[in-house]
Amino acid sequence: MNDAASLTRQLAGLLDEAGLISDPARSAPMLRDHRSLYRGHALAVVAPADTAAVSRVLAFCNQNRIGVVPQGGNTSYCGGATPDASSSQVLVSLARLDRVRAIDTANYTMIAEAGCILANLQKAAAEADRYLPLSLGSEGSCMLGGNLSTNAGGLNVIRYGMARELVLGLEVVLPDGRVLESLTGLRKDNTGYDVKSLFLGAEGTLGIITAACLKLYPAIRSRATAFVAVRDPDAALSLLDAVRTASGDCVSSFELIPRIGVDLTLRHIPGVVDPIDTPANWYVLCELSSSRAAEPLDALLEQTLAQAHERGWVLNASVAMNERERESIWRLRESIPEAQRKDGASLKHDISVPVSQVPRFIDVAGDWVARNIPQGVLVAYGHLGDGNLHFNVNQRGGTQAFQLQAVEQKARRAIHDLVREFGGSFSAEHGIGQLKVFELERYAPPVELELMRTVKKALDPNGIMNPGKVLRA
Amino acid sequence: MNDAASLTRQLAGLLDEAGLISDPARSAPMLRDHRSLYRGHALAVVAPADTAAVSRVLAFCNQNRIGVVPQGGNTSYCGGATPDASSSQVLVSLARLDRVRAIDTANYTMIAEAGCILANLQKAAAEADRYLPLSLGSEGSCMLGGNLSTNAGGLNVIRYGMARELVLGLEVVLPDGRVLESLTGLRKDNTGYDVKSLFLGAEGTLGIITAACLKLYPAIRSRATAFVAVRDPDAALSLLDAVRTASGDCVSSFELIPRIGVDLTLRHIPGVVDPIDTPANWYVLCELSSSRAAEPLDALLEQTLAQAHERGWVLNASVAMNERERESIWRLRESIPEAQRKDGASLKHDISVPVSQVPRFIDVAGDWVARNIPQGVLVAYGHLGDGNLHFNVNQRGGTQAFQLQAVEQKARRAIHDLVREFGGSFSAEHGIGQLKVFELERYAPPVELELMRTVKKALDPNGIMNPGKVLRA
Repeated sequence: MNDAASLTRQLAGLLDEAGLISDPARSAPMLRDHRSLYRGHALAVVAPADTAAVSRVLAFCNQNRIGVVPQGGNTSYCGGATPDASSSQVLVSLARLDRVRAIDTANYTMIAEAGCILANLQKAAAEADRYLPLSLGSEGSCMLGGNLSTNAGGLNVIRYGMARELVLGLEVVLPDGRVLESLTGLRKDNTGYDVKSLFLGAEGTLGIITAACLKLYPAIRSRATAFVAVRDPDAALSLLDAVRTASGDCVSSFELIPRIGVDLTLRHIPGVVDPIDTPANWYVLCELSSSRAAEPLDALLEQTLAQAHERGWVLNASVAMNERERESIWRLRESIPEAQRKDGASLKHDISVPVSQVPRFIDVAGDWVARNIPQGVLVAYGHLGDGNLHFNVNQRGGTQAFQLQAVEQKARRAIHDLVREFGGSFSAEHGIGQLKVFELERYAPPVELELMRTVKKALDPNGIMNPGKVLRA
Repeated sequence: MNDAASLTRQLAGLLDEAGLISDPARSAPMLRDHRSLYRGHALAVVAPADTAAVSRVLAFCNQNRIGVVPQGGNTSYCGGATPDASSSQVLVSLARLDRVRAIDTANYTMIAEAGCILANLQKAAAEADRYLPLSLGSEGSCMLGGNLSTNAGGLNVIRYGMARELVLGLEVVLPDGRVLESLTGLRKDNTGYDVKSLFLGAEGTLGIITAACLKLYPAIRSRATAFVAVRDPDAALSLLDAVRTASGDCVSSFELIPRIGVDLTLRHIPGVVDPIDTPANWYVLCELSSSRAAEPLDALLEQTLAQAHERGWVLNASVAMNERERESIWRLRESIPEAQRKDGASLKHDISVPVSQVPRFIDVAGDWVARNIPQGVLVAYGHLGDGNLHFNVNQRGGTQAFQLQAVEQKARRAIHDLVREFGGSFSAEHGIGQLKVFELERYAPPVELELMRTVKKALDPNGIMNPGKVLRA
C-alpha cells in the first residue's frame, strides 16, 4: 500500500492540519525556482510546524527511501530548492518555523528558527539595540535556513564574513530524524569536531537546519558613504588598503562599478542620478560604519580620499551628505542587475578571485570577452572588498539575444577556466544547487570532491537529502 | 619481516637523512607532554621535510595499520601530541615544515606551513605591515599546525575569533596519504561542503594539516589599556557593553581578574605592582586597539570609564600612559598562572559559558567551591569578553596539596555539571587530547558525539590517526 496516495496520507498523519499543502495554487510557486530555470513535481508539499514534526517527516522519508527537498524563501539562483520532475520527492517548507526563540544582548547572540525572513531578524536585532550584519538583495523574502544552508554572502562580507562565520550553534534534523541539538552561544568551545560547519553551505543535502544561534554586533550609529571615480581597478585596491587602515578597519562595503554599470542604470532605472559630473571608467562605492555615535566618519573618509587623490588613485569623489544622498548612491549600485535585465540578455558568472588578483583578472578575462564575444559587452561589477565579481556579459545593441546565448557554454568554460588559473571560485556566493553540479566536478580539487562524497555517504547513507543538489545523485 | 626494526628501516627509506630522529636525547622530550602528565614510547620518531614526505609516511602507516601521532610545538595541555606507551605508534614531528610560503598584502593573507612557530608568523606579518591576531601564552614555542588542530583561542578572541575563524584554506594529508590541496585565499567561495573545518580542532585525528592560508588584518598603530576596579562581575559586563559600543567595537581584550589574582602575583612575582591603590574585589583589564595612527583611544577609554564610574560600575581605574605602564598591567595578568603554581597545588578548569552568564556562574559555582572545598580557595579569572574562565581552585594556606588533590574528581564533576547547566563548555580553548576523552563522552550532546564518530570512521577507517585522542580508540 505504498502508492503515492498512501504515502501522502501517512505523511499527513505525522503533521498537524496545516502541515500538508494540497492546494495547487499554494504549492505551484514552491515547485519552480526563483529564476524559472526549473520546474518540479512533488509527491507531497509539507510545512511542519516545528522541529519535532520535521524529525518525524525525515524519519518517515528515510525509512521509505523518499527524497526530501528542503525549502526556505525559495530564492536560490541555482535551483537548490526545487524538486525534480519525478513526483517522487517530498518538498519540506520550513516557513512555519518562524520564531525568534531568544535574544541575549549581553552575549550578543540571537537564536532564531529556519523559517524566519532575514529582514525580520535584522529588525529584531535592531529592536534589541544590536546589529545582525547579514544583508543581501533578497533579504525581504529569503529565510535564515536557506541563508545558512547556502552560506550566504552579500554586502558586508569584507567586515563580518559569510553566513557561516556568523553562526555559533545549530539545531539540525539529520536524514534519519535524529536531532543534533547544539544551539550553543559560546565564543570558545573546543570539544571535538566542528560538525556543525558541515551543514552550513551543504544546501540541505546532509540534513535540515531548523534553528541557529547567530552572532550579533553593537548597533550601527554612524556611517559615511562615498561614490568615488578611480583611475582603474588597481587604484581601487590601493584605496581599499588606505581606507581600511585609516578607518581602523571599519569598511563595511567596498563595491566596484564600471562606467557601463552607471550608464545602464541611468538608461533604465527612473530616478538614478550620476553622483559625479565627469565620467570615468571605474567607480567604487565605499561605506564605513561604526557603533560610535559621535564618530567623524565623513571627515575621515574625505581626508583619505583627498590623500588618494594626491596619489592619483582617485579622480573625483562624492561623499553623501545625508541619508537621502546615501540612499541615492546605493540605489545606483543595487539597480545594476535590474538595469542589466532591462537592457537585454546576459551571461552571468558569480566568481571570486583573491582580492589582489581582481584587476589582473578583469584585464585578462575582459580581453578574452572582447576577442571572443563580439555580440556581447562586459559588465563586471561587484564586491571588490571580498574579491567577488559578477562577471557578466550583456547583449550588445544591434544583436539578438539568441546570438549571445549561443556562446553561453563556451563563455562559461573559458571564464571559469580563467578563474581557476587565478586561484578563484566559479561560485562565490550563489552555491551549487542543481545548476552547477558538473562545474563542481570539473573545478573542485579532486581530493576535496572525494571528501565531500565520503561525507555525504556517511551522513546520508540512503541519499534521501536533496538528491542531485551539490553532488550527483 | 614487519618487526619494529624492519618497519623503522622502511620508514627511514621514505625520508631524507634528517627524517628519522634516532638520538634519544632529541626524541625523549617529544615523548612526554608539556605538563608531564603523560610519557609515551614510539616505534619511531620522524620529521618529514615536506608535505610529500608526510604523505609517504601516512600512506605507509595506513597500509601497515600503524598509529600516527602528529606533533607541533608539543605545548598541548591535554596530552594531545603524546603517543601511548605501546612503542607501536609513529610520532610525526611537523617542525621541519617551517616556511612562510607567501604573503599577499593586498589580499590580507599569508600561506604558512604547520611547523612555523606562531611568534615567527606574527613577526612575518608585522614585517609586511599586517597583523596576525592569533596570540596566546605559548606563542614563542607553539606551532601553527598545533594551533589549527586544536582551534587555539587566546587573548584576542572577542575581536578576531578562534583560530578556525582565521583560516581561509588548508593543505591536509589524509590518513591514506592523499593530499587535500585547498590552500585558497578566497573570502567568498560557495562550492560544496566546508570539509576543511573538520580538520580545524580535530587534534590530528582525521589527518595532518601541513599548511594553511590565514587571514591578516591592518597593522595595529594605536592602543589603549586600562586596569579597572569594578563593582562586581555584573558591572564588568555592563562596562564591556559600553566600551564595545563607544569604541566602535575595537575591544581586543577584556580580562576579568579577582582580587586574589592580584594578591597572588604581588606575593610571588617580582616587579608586579598593583596599578590601583585601593583594593577591590574584582578588576578588568581592558584593551582597545586600532589600525588608525592618530586614534585618540586613550581619551575615548577614559571618557567611557568616567561614565561607567558615574553609573557605579567602575570604582577606580588606571589607564596606561605609556608602553611601560601597559606592559606592567599585562605582566600582572599574564603572571597569574605562574603565581598560582608558586602558591601551591591547584585544580584547573578551562571552562566557558555564554558571556551573559559569567557573573551568575561565578556566584553559583563559587558558592559550591566555598561549601565543598574548605581546603581550597577559588581563583576564577580569564577572558570575560568571550566567556572563557580559568575556574581554578588553589590550595589554601595551612593545608597540604594531597588534601586538595583528593577532591579533584569530585570538583571536576560538580563544576563541569554546573557548566553544562549554564549551557557552557568543559573545554573552552585547551581541547580534548587524551585527558578529556571521557568528559567529552559525558557532556557532548549524544547526537553530536555520534556524528563525530561517524566522521572519524568515514575519514580514517583504519583508525590510524592519533588513536585515543578526542574519541576513544
